[in-house]
Amino acid sequence: MEDDSLLAEANDHFHDECGVFGIFGRQDAAAIVTLGLHALQHRGQEAAGIVSSDGTQVYAHRALGLVQDIFSAPVLAKLPGSRAIGHVRYSTAGGSHIKNAQPICIDYAHGSIAVAHNGNLTNADEIRHRLELAGSIFQTSSDTEVIVHLIARSRESSTVDRVADALRQTKGAFSLMVLTPHEVIAVRDPWGFRPLALGRLKDAYVFASEPVAFELIAADFLRDVEPGEMVVVDKAGLRSLKPFEREPAKMCVFEYVYFARPDATLGGINVYEARKRMGRALAVEAGVDADVVIPVPDSGVPAALGYAEQAKLPFELGLIRSHYVGRTFIEPESSIRHFGVKLKLSPNRSIIQGKRVVVIDDSIVRGTTSRKIVKMLRDSGAREVHLRISSPPINWPCFYGVDTPSRSELIASSHSLEEIARYVTADSVGYLRPESLHKAVGGTGGKGFCDACFTGDYPVAFEHPAHRRQLSLVI
Amino acid sequence: MEDDSLLAEANDHFHDECGVFGIFGRQDAAAIVTLGLHALQHRGQEAAGIVSSDGTQVYAHRALGLVQDIFSAPVLAKLPGSRAIGHVRYSTAGGSHIKNAQPICIDYAHGSIAVAHNGNLTNADEIRHRLELAGSIFQTSSDTEVIVHLIARSRESSTVDRVADALRQTKGAFSLMVLTPHEVIAVRDPWGFRPLALGRLKDAYVFASEPVAFELIAADFLRDVEPGEMVVVDKAGLRSLKPFEREPAKMCVFEYVYFARPDATLGGINVYEARKRMGRALAVEAGVDADVVIPVPDSGVPAALGYAEQAKLPFELGLIRSHYVGRTFIEPESSIRHFGVKLKLSPNRSIIQGKRVVVIDDSIVRGTTSRKIVKMLRDSGAREVHLRISSPPINWPCFYGVDTPSRSELIASSHSLEEIARYVTADSVGYLRPESLHKAVGGTGGKGFCDACFTGDYPVAFEHPAHRRQLSLVI
Amino acid sequence: MEDDSLLAEANDHFHDECGVFGIFGRQDAAAIVTLGLHALQHRGQEAAGIVSSDGTQVYAHRALGLVQDIFSAPVLAKLPGSRAIGHVRYSTAGGSHIKNAQPICIDYAHGSIAVAHNGNLTNADEIRHRLELAGSIFQTSSDTEVIVHLIARSRESSTVDRVADALRQTKGAFSLMVLTPHEVIAVRDPWGFRPLALGRLKDAYVFASEPVAFELIAADFLRDVEPGEMVVVDKAGLRSLKPFEREPAKMCVFEYVYFARPDATLGGINVYEARKRMGRALAVEAGVDADVVIPVPDSGVPAALGYAEQAKLPFELGLIRSHYVGRTFIEPESSIRHFGVKLKLSPNRSIIQGKRVVVIDDSIVRGTTSRKIVKMLRDSGAREVHLRISSPPINWPCFYGVDTPSRSELIASSHSLEEIARYVTADSVGYLRPESLHKAVGGTGGKGFCDACFTGDYPVAFEHPAHRRQLSLVI
Amino acid sequence: MEDDSLLAEANDHFHDECGVFGIFGRQDAAAIVTLGLHALQHRGQEAAGIVSSDGTQVYAHRALGLVQDIFSAPVLAKLPGSRAIGHVRYSTAGGSHIKNAQPICIDYAHGSIAVAHNGNLTNADEIRHRLELAGSIFQTSSDTEVIVHLIARSRESSTVDRVADALRQTKGAFSLMVLTPHEVIAVRDPWGFRPLALGRLKDAYVFASEPVAFELIAADFLRDVEPGEMVVVDKAGLRSLKPFEREPAKMCVFEYVYFARPDATLGGINVYEARKRMGRALAVEAGVDADVVIPVPDSGVPAALGYAEQAKLPFELGLIRSHYVGRTFIEPESSIRHFGVKLKLSPNRSIIQGKRVVVIDDSIVRGTTSRKIVKMLRDSGAREVHLRISSPPINWPCFYGVDTPSRSELIASSHSLEEIARYVTADSVGYLRPESLHKAVGGTGGKGFCDACFTGDYPVAFEHPAHRRQLSLVI
Repeated sequence: MEDDSLLAEANDHFHDECGVFGIFGRQDAAAIVTLGLHALQHRGQEAAGIVSSDGTQVYAHRALGLVQDIFSAPVLAKLPGSRAIGHVRYSTAGGSHIKNAQPICIDYAHGSIAVAHNGNLTNADEIRHRLELAGSIFQTSSDTEVIVHLIARSRESSTVDRVADALRQTKGAFSLMVLTPHEVIAVRDPWGFRPLALGRLKDAYVFASEPVAFELIAADFLRDVEPGEMVVVDKAGLRSLKPFEREPAKMCVFEYVYFARPDATLGGINVYEARKRMGRALAVEAGVDADVVIPVPDSGVPAALGYAEQAKLPFELGLIRSHYVGRTFIEPESSIRHFGVKLKLSPNRSIIQGKRVVVIDDSIVRGTTSRKIVKMLRDSGAREVHLRISSPPINWPCFYGVDTPSRSELIASSHSLEEIARYVTADSVGYLRPESLHKAVGGTGGKGFCDACFTGDYPVAFEHPAHRRQLSLVI
Repeated sequence: MEDDSLLAEANDHFHDECGVFGIFGRQDAAAIVTLGLHALQHRGQEAAGIVSSDGTQVYAHRALGLVQDIFSAPVLAKLPGSRAIGHVRYSTAGGSHIKNAQPICIDYAHGSIAVAHNGNLTNADEIRHRLELAGSIFQTSSDTEVIVHLIARSRESSTVDRVADALRQTKGAFSLMVLTPHEVIAVRDPWGFRPLALGRLKDAYVFASEPVAFELIAADFLRDVEPGEMVVVDKAGLRSLKPFEREPAKMCVFEYVYFARPDATLGGINVYEARKRMGRALAVEAGVDADVVIPVPDSGVPAALGYAEQAKLPFELGLIRSHYVGRTFIEPESSIRHFGVKLKLSPNRSIIQGKRVVVIDDSIVRGTTSRKIVKMLRDSGAREVHLRISSPPINWPCFYGVDTPSRSELIASSHSLEEIARYVTADSVGYLRPESLHKAVGGTGGKGFCDACFTGDYPVAFEHPAHRRQLSLVI
Repeated sequence: MEDDSLLAEANDHFHDECGVFGIFGRQDAAAIVTLGLHALQHRGQEAAGIVSSDGTQVYAHRALGLVQDIFSAPVLAKLPGSRAIGHVRYSTAGGSHIKNAQPICIDYAHGSIAVAHNGNLTNADEIRHRLELAGSIFQTSSDTEVIVHLIARSRESSTVDRVADALRQTKGAFSLMVLTPHEVIAVRDPWGFRPLALGRLKDAYVFASEPVAFELIAADFLRDVEPGEMVVVDKAGLRSLKPFEREPAKMCVFEYVYFARPDATLGGINVYEARKRMGRALAVEAGVDADVVIPVPDSGVPAALGYAEQAKLPFELGLIRSHYVGRTFIEPESSIRHFGVKLKLSPNRSIIQGKRVVVIDDSIVRGTTSRKIVKMLRDSGAREVHLRISSPPINWPCFYGVDTPSRSELIASSHSLEEIARYVTADSVGYLRPESLHKAVGGTGGKGFCDACFTGDYPVAFEHPAHRRQLSLVI
Repeated sequence: MEDDSLLAEANDHFHDECGVFGIFGRQDAAAIVTLGLHALQHRGQEAAGIVSSDGTQVYAHRALGLVQDIFSAPVLAKLPGSRAIGHVRYSTAGGSHIKNAQPICIDYAHGSIAVAHNGNLTNADEIRHRLELAGSIFQTSSDTEVIVHLIARSRESSTVDRVADALRQTKGAFSLMVLTPHEVIAVRDPWGFRPLALGRLKDAYVFASEPVAFELIAADFLRDVEPGEMVVVDKAGLRSLKPFEREPAKMCVFEYVYFARPDATLGGINVYEARKRMGRALAVEAGVDADVVIPVPDSGVPAALGYAEQAKLPFELGLIRSHYVGRTFIEPESSIRHFGVKLKLSPNRSIIQGKRVVVIDDSIVRGTTSRKIVKMLRDSGAREVHLRISSPPINWPCFYGVDTPSRSELIASSHSLEEIARYVTADSVGYLRPESLHKAVGGTGGKGFCDACFTGDYPVAFEHPAHRRQLSLVI
C-alpha cells in the first residue's frame, strides 16, 4: 500500500486503524503493555494510552506521540498494578487531539471502567442522539464513548452483563479491551472484522491485536479470540462467553494485504507467506515482460519477492526508503512538503537505468503517490515501468474501522485500468482478482473474509446518511 | 554493520561519522541545505546545524535532533541568504551536547566565518596545546575548533589563503565546508579519507558528503571533490586550487561496506552494486550448506541478495525491522532496555522454523548484538545459524573520522573465527578477505582505499598517547 | 492574612477562592475577558480558562498557570466571537490538574453550554450519587460538573429555565457565569455568599467577581448582581429574573478581610477603607504600648496604617516583600524550601532593632507562618513583638467556597490567646471582636454577612459526613 | 524610579544592572549561591548562572529566567563542590540571549576559570579590537569576555597575577567574582562604582553585591570589599591585595535612590532610612499644599513615608500594584500591551477622588510612564496632582554599568520643570537638589559618590565614539 506518511503528505491516505493490548496477572502490567503497544505501533502513530489498576483504583495516561516517547519510567511509575489495557491510535489528517486518545476511562455508579476499541460502529450516531435526549453529556465524537455511555446506563448487575448489554445495542466492528479494578475483558464483534489474539505470559493472560506483540514480550500465542466471543479474566481465571447472536465470519482481508506486520500470524495464516502468495498469483494473472522486479518498500517487499520468484526475474531494491521521515507527516513544513515522495523514497539509479521495471505495491487509493513513484522511476532512466498491485482495485469505502476516503476519491471506482495507467504514467497497471486474493490468503477460496472495499459487499447494513454520501461517485 | 541504534542499545557501537552540505547561489539556500542534510541524515542523528549568509551577515541555527524536527519554517525564516552550509553529527554514547553541534561560527578580526567538518585530525591535541599557551580560548573539545583557531591566527591576507594555511598545519582527515559572507569553500584532505561531491542546481553550485543528496534536490552530480582539492565558489564563479602536497588516495573503504546509503555513488562506484558483489564474493569464499539466506536489515540486504544469487538459495525477510525505534537509543528507558534487539528486530518464525539459516550482516564490532540476533533466530526454531559478514574482521580502531572503540574491545582483534562463533552462539562465522573486499568495491584490486580498520595499515602517522592507548589489547 | 505562597510553603494555607468574568456584545470578547481575569488573578493562580462564542460555535481554552502566560495572541485568535466567559482557579496544595480547570464546556442535546463557578455547593455529593445511579458519567469531582449535569437532564424548554431548574436543586454558594452561543447568564445564590458585579463597556454588558476588573478595561460599574438574581444578556438586551426563594443576605465577610483587592468596592463598601477601619478598631480594642507599627505585606498594610493612625505610632516597612517568589509555591525545591518565609519576606533591621514592634496581619490559620515572622523579627533585634490581627479568631471551616483546613488544624479553635502567643513566640496576640469587624466593614452593625468561619453560625445546613468530620476537633 | 516592568512596557527604561555572589568553603556551595542570587534577583531578571568547582573540575549552568525557576534540585545536583560563583543579569529590551548569560567559563592553558561581572568597562572595544587582530576569537559582545581574554593572554604565572594583570589594562567599573578549582577571587575597581560585600557563613567566606543576600542565608556581614581591593580566598584562608593605583571613591549614588533593596545597607548606610531622608528633604525643598501623599509602589514608598512625616500629611496607598505582572514585560502581547501601566498599577479611587495628591517617585527617565500615572490619577478624580521626585533630574547617561538611554532621550536634559510638568500633565513637578541627595544619603555632604547621571561629572574618561554619540542632545 502506498505508505502512510507518503500518503498523508500526498493527501492520498488510507488511514491505518488502531491497536489494542491487555494483560491480567503480572505486577509490571503497564510496562508489558508498553512493549505490546510498541509492537503494534504500525497500527497507529498518533496517540497512545494505558490504563492500569491495582485492584482498587485505576490509573491512566494518554498522550499524542509514539509509545516509546510517551511511556518513560516516571510515567510508568504512576501506572501501578497487575492489570492494564492499552491503545495506539491512527493519525487523522485533520485535527489530531489528545481528547480522542484512548483508552477512555470513566467513573460511574459502579466504580471505574476503561475501554479501548479497534473498529467502527455503524449505528453510533443514532445511539448517541438517543442518549443525549435523555441527558447524557458526551466529551468526544468517538464511537467508543457511545459504548461507555451504554455501559453506564445499563441496568444489569455485573460488569460483564453491562458490557454485553451495551454491545448488543451496537452494530458494526469492535475488538474491545475493557478494564475494571477487578477484571480485564476482551470482546470481538460477531463478524470478527478486526483481529484479536489471546496469549499467555507465565501466570498472566495477554491480549493483542496481532500476536506479533506476544513475540516481543516472550508470551505464548494461545488462540484468536473468536468472532462474537467475550473473554473475561479475573482472579478466578479465564472464562469464555458468547453473548451475541451468531453471524458469518468476516475478518478484514486487508489486514493481510497491508495492515498487519509481515511477521504476524492472523487466523492461523502467516502474513508474510500470504503476501508472497499474492505476489506469485499476481505474476501469473498480470505478468509482463521485464528485466527487474522492485518493491515499493516496505509493504511491497514480500509480494515483490513472490512475483520475482514466480516470474524468474531478479528482485532488486530499486527504491531506497529513508528511515528518518517517520514523523514528518504530522506537521509537514511547506518548504519541504512539495518534495513529497522524494523525502521518503530515493531511486537507486544503477538498478533502474535502461531497465524494464515491474514495481510492486500493495494497493492504490487515490493514485497520487503511485504517480510520483512512477515518475521517479522514469526520471531515473527506466525504459518501461509496469505497476503491479498485490490486491484488487479499491472501489468502496470501509465502515468497519478503516478511515477511507469517499468513493468519489478512490481512483479505481471511476477509472479503467488504462485510465489509471495513464494517470500514474505507467506503461501498464495490473491488479489481483478478488478470488485470487482470497485464495492467496486462505489457500482454499477465501470464505470468511470481509472484502467490501474491493467488492462493495457490505456484511453489516448501515443507515446513516453520511455513510450513503460516502458511497456516491458524485461529490 | 550492526545497526546504530541496536549498537547503542547494546553498548556495541561503531559510531557513524558526520555529513556536510553546502550551496552558493540560490535564494532559499538554507531550505536547500535542509533537504540535503535530510538526505545525509544516516551519517549523523545527534545534532544538525545550518549557517547561511546574505552577503553581509551570517545567520546560524544548531540544535540536537533530526533535521526535519529542527528546521521548521520559522527557523528557516531566520536563515536568509543565497549561500549556506550545514552539518549532521553522529550520536555519541556519552554526553550529546549542543555545544558540539556544527557548523562552528565565529567573528574574528576579518569578519564572520563558519566551518563544518567531517573527519578527524591526528594532531589536533598538539596544535590545541600550542595555541592555548599563546592565549587562545577553546569552547569545545572538537578538532573543528582547532581549524577555526588556526584560521583566526593566520597572517595570510585572504580567506582562501588563511584556510589553506590553517589546514596545512593539520594532519589527518577532513572533508570541510567553509562559509563567509562572500564565498563557500569545499576542501578535502590529500588522502581523500572521507567523501565529498560537487554538483550543480541550475545556477548554483552544491556540495555534499554523498551525491544522493543531489538526487533529492534534483541537482546534477558533476564530480567528486578530489583528494587535496580546494573548491572555492563566489560571485565570480567556481575555481579549483591544490594547496596541499600530494598524497596517495586513501578513500575509506568502510563507506562502501556500511556508512554510505545504498543508492549512493562514491568515486564512481555504486554502493548497492558493490555490496551485492561483496555478498557474491562471500558466498564463494565462505559459502555453507543452507536452506535460506536472510539479511540483518537494512544494511545487510544488498549483500544478502548477492549471496543468495551466487549460492542459488532463497532470499527471505527472516528478521522484520520496526520503523519506530529510530530514537530510543537516545535515552532508553531501563524498563524497556533489556528487551534490546527485540525492540528493533523481530523474527519471522514461518521463515526460520526448522531451517538452516545463513544470516548476513556487514560487520561485527564487539559481537554483543550479533549474539542477540543469533539467539533470536535459534529461539525461533532455526536448525542451524551461520553468520556471514560481508567485510573482513575489524581489528583496529579508526583515527580518521569514525568513532571506534579501543582495540581491546574489538572482538576480532583477540578471537579466532571459532571463538567468535562460540561467543555469538552461531554454528559458523565467515568473513570476506580484505583483497576480496577491495575487488568487490573497486573491481580491480582496491588500490586507493584506506582499510586500516581491517589491516592496521594506517596511512597517516599519529603521535598522541591516547591513540596508542587505543591500539593496545590490554586495558 | 498569612500570605498564600508563604502559607503553601508552610502548609498553613487558607486557599484563595475563584474569580469569574463574562461579557456579551463586543467583538474582541475573549481579549476583554483576559484583561478581566488578569485583574482577578489574586483570586486564583492555579489555572485559567475562557470560553467564547461567535453565535454559532463555542471555543474553549483552559490551562494551568497565570492568565498572562496562557492567553497569548495565537490563543486569543482561536477564541473568536462577541461573547465570552472566563474563570481563574485557586491553587490546591495537592494535585493541581488541568481537568479541574474551568469553564466547563459541554455539548448536549440542546447544543453547547459553558459554566464558570465561584463557590461551593453543600449537597453536591448527594446529587452526584443520584445522577450516577441513573447512568450519568462524571469527568471531574467538581461541584460545577454537578450543575452541568443537572442542566443537561432538565426537561425545561429554554436554557434560562434549565439553568434555573438545575440551580433550584442545589444548596450552597454560587456566583455563576453561563454561556451559550446565544446568551450570557450571571446568577448569584439566594444568600449572595460570593460577590458578583455588573458593569457596562460601551454597548456591552460585563460581569466580574470584583468591580476592580472593570477599572482595568475602563468599563462602568452599574451595580452588584443581587443575591438570588439571574441576569440574562442576549441580543434583545438585559433582563433580570428572580428564580429562587428569597433568603437573608449573607455576603462573605472575609472578602473584606483578605480576599478582595484593596481597591475593590463590594456591596458599596471600599475594601481599603474597611481595612483601615479594622486597623483603627484593633488599636482601640487591643492596643499595646509600642515604638513602631509594621504590616505583614501586602495584605496587612491598610490595617497597619489604620492602627498607626489611631495609636499615633510611626508606620514603617519593617518587613520587605520579595517580588520574585510568586510562583515557588507551585513546586518548591526541597533545597530551598526550608528557608521558608525568608524567601518571601526579609526583615529591615534598621527599623526593628531595639524596638517594641506591633506587627499587623489580617488573620491566622494554623499559626506556623506567624511563628516564623515573629521569630524573624526577634532575630533582627526587636525588643518586644506584639502580633495584632485585624479580624476575629478563625474557629470554623468554610463550606461556601473557601478551601479551609479542618477545625482541628485551626489554631484558634483549640488555643487561648495566651497559648497562641506562646506558640508564635510573641509577647502578646490580639484580635478584633466579630461585632467590631462587622462594624468596621459595614459601618452599622454588620447585618447581612456570613461570618461562619469566626462564629460557627452556618447560614445553610449541610448533611454530608465529610463536612461533619471537618468540624470535629479530634482527628 | 519608574518601575522596570512598567518602563519596559512603555519603552521608558533605565535598565537594572547585575548582581554577583560567591562562596568558598561549604559543601553545598551552589545551593547557597542559588539563595544568594535569589536575594539579588531585583538586580537582574533576564538570566542567571552558577559555576561551581569541587577542586578538580568546574561545573556550569546558565539559563534565561528567574533564579528559582532555573536552579531546581536536579540542576543543583550537577553543580557539586565547595566553591561557587553566580550572576544575575538585567533584562535588555532587545535580544535577550543565553549567550550573554554569565558567569563566563573557559578552559585555557592554565586550566578552567570562570568570571562573573557587574559593571561596564569604558575601553572594552579598544582592547577587543587589539586582541582580534592578534587572532583571538570572541563569542559574545560583552565586556566580561574581554577580561577573560586578557587573563588567557597574560604571561603572569599565578591566577591572581593574571587577573590583576588583565584588570590593570581595563578602565571603568567592575565588581568581579572569579573562580578556579582552587580559589575564589573578588575584585572591585579603584573607584568602587558598584557595591560588593564580604561576609562569613560559619567556616566559609561569602561575597555579594548587596549584604541583604547574607541575611537570607544567615551569614554575617563582615565589611564591604574596598574600592581597588582584590580579596582572594583559597584553602589557606583569606588575603587582601591592592593591585591597582589608588583613585578617589566613587560609589554609584543611584544604588541608594533605586537599585538596592530597601533593606540593604551599603557603605554603612541603610537604604530605607536614606530614602526616607530623601523624602523628608523633598518635602522641605519642594513641598506643596495637598491633602494626601501617595507613593508609586514599590520603590517610592520609603520616600513617600518620609515626605508625609515631614509634611504632616496622611500617607495612603493610592496606587495598588498587581503581583502578577512580573514577567509580562519580557514578551508583552500586543492585545494587552496598550493597557500599559494599568496592568501593573491600579488607582484606589476612594483615596484619590476629590483630593490634592502628592505622588512620589524616585526618578524620571523619559517621562512616558510618569505621564500615564498622572493621567490615571486624574481619571480617578484627583483635584490636583503634584509629582515629586526623590532625586535630581537625570541629565546624563551612565557608562559604568547602568544601561541608560542616550542623552537626547532623557526628558530632563532638554526640558524645564514647567515643560516636564506640562508633558506629564501634572500641576507641578519637583526634584531634589544634588547636594540634598548627597546629604540625605551620606549625612555629611556626599563626598565619595558618583553622581554623573545627575551632574555629568564623569570620574573616568572615555574615548569611544559611541559614548560621545550618547552624550549628544541631537540624534
